[in-house]
Amino acid sequence: MKLLNVGLPGQETPCLLDSNNRIRSLEGVCDVISSDFLANDGLQALKNLDVDSLPIIEKPDRIGAPLLNPGKIIAVGLNYDEHIKETGGKQQDEPVLFTKAVSALSGPFDLIERPKGATQVDWEIELVVIIGKPARYISEDDAEAHIAGFCTGIDVSERYFQKSRSGQWLKGKSADTFAPIGPYFVTLDEFKQYQSCAVSLDVNGKRMQASNTDTMIHSVKKLVSYINEFMSLQPGDLIFTGTPEGVGLGMNPPQFLKAGDKVVAEVEGLGAQQHNVVDYSA
Amino acid sequence: MKLLNVGLPGQETPCLLDSNNRIRSLEGVCDVISSDFLANDGLQALKNLDVDSLPIIEKPDRIGAPLLNPGKIIAVGLNYDEHIKETGGKQQDEPVLFTKAVSALSGPFDLIERPKGATQVDWEIELVVIIGKPARYISEDDAEAHIAGFCTGIDVSERYFQKSRSGQWLKGKSADTFAPIGPYFVTLDEFKQYQSCAVSLDVNGKRMQASNTDTMIHSVKKLVSYINEFMSLQPGDLIFTGTPEGVGLGMNPPQFLKAGDKVVAEVEGLGAQQHNVVDYSA
Repeated sequence: MKLLNVGLPGQETPCLLDSNNRIRSLEGVCDVISSDFLANDGLQALKNLDVDSLPIIEKPDRIGAPLLNPGKIIAVGLNYDEHIKETGGKQQDEPVLFTKAVSALSGPFDLIERPKGATQVDWEIELVVIIGKPARYISEDDAEAHIAGFCTGIDVSERYFQKSRSGQWLKGKSADTFAPIGPYFVTLDEFKQYQSCAVSLDVNGKRMQASNTDTMIHSVKKLVSYINEFMSLQPGDLIFTGTPEGVGLGMNPPQFLKAGDKVVAEVEGLGAQQHNVVDYSA
Repeated sequence: MKLLNVGLPGQETPCLLDSNNRIRSLEGVCDVISSDFLANDGLQALKNLDVDSLPIIEKPDRIGAPLLNPGKIIAVGLNYDEHIKETGGKQQDEPVLFTKAVSALSGPFDLIERPKGATQVDWEIELVVIIGKPARYISEDDAEAHIAGFCTGIDVSERYFQKSRSGQWLKGKSADTFAPIGPYFVTLDEFKQYQSCAVSLDVNGKRMQASNTDTMIHSVKKLVSYINEFMSLQPGDLIFTGTPEGVGLGMNPPQFLKAGDKVVAEVEGLGAQQHNVVDYSA
């Protein structure tokens, strides 16, 4: 099933994408697609749905993030060899984890806003895991039982804030609009190929990132189990699984986003995002 | 006003502490004290309340965290000179920020559970700020207008996870039970003295930490405004403002919590917490 939320920010209603890629409304059938929806076993309640009977939405106002109100966003750093090389880093003994503020969440076609004082806004296409069931100390073998599905995401990053403003990466990872996800959320039963899908990101029509999740250092199953060593996971928690090579920081000279740029990002099978970049204005 | 939540985990109901320190129920008057309560202007709705008419709860089952479902927990590192010295660190150019997982939240008398594999569980008494109104790029002068109130908190930390497991402190800050807050939340109008209150923490009856928030390097107002440079803040977001000297890591030799230990922690005017330490058991 491909689930999405349609509507202006704060007014989203739940929808699904049918087999002909038409958006159909789930209003009245279930609540908005959110952490509460997953916690209340919303996916189970959508089984045996008569999709053809659902009203078609021809022209949605806006597509929102396909999972609202995540409890937390955990992100993984340095999870592709070629990306480690381009950043001048080296592989760590264990997966590197950091966080993005949940207030950074935005929709798949929303503006990416450069925060006040930003000079080094960078892109990172990533496969995003959506947790479906509470998880505490689960093994890699049990990880899938706790995954609801996947979506495309961009880990937008301000490199100067991240690296040069007194420690801990979250400073560069958390501005509003820095965590666009979507357009839709594909449930695990329809997306078993999560460990072998192409990921790509273009800036102004030029392909900057092109890789495949089969080159991750730490697999999705490993990451879910590993994160669980440090914290419990709840329905609706998001895991950004790391970006491959081709970020702006790794170019010579480095290249960063400026107002007017256009970013297109896609994980194969999870749909493409498109964003215009703007400067913050009060 | 002193607000609290009473009841077993997930079944809390809202209460207040009257001027004689009696717990009175707010059930039916307002929703549980949470980020939604603050976002929906719940504090305003409690003005002109006839406190004496509210039912007294003689023996509460449990006191929960006085603010449930925070959107995020932002914490401040190295914000007291003597603590910087004891950790062997040096003052950074800017405030150091990190995060604690919201799933670490617990009540003021709940168990502190040492996670699997823990060897260095440490204590950090802290003044906690509760955000009351949405904030984006606010100045220090405007910070108070966005603060709902304050509570006592402990930033429980696993030092080996924090420092020696491949980067980013959140690994040592996020286990379940690692963010006990309460017993109650005092609204700003009754707690203007937040920048000059004693903080203390005892382990097994021995005073380990004793300081005052007047020795913070970066003031509460500065911190709220500073965090806002990197992310927006929403009602119910929590800011742990840093701990003074006297943590286990700073002792010679270092001392850490073990099962059976008892921790008592207090911020003057915000009430005392008490916790028994246990090992994780499945």
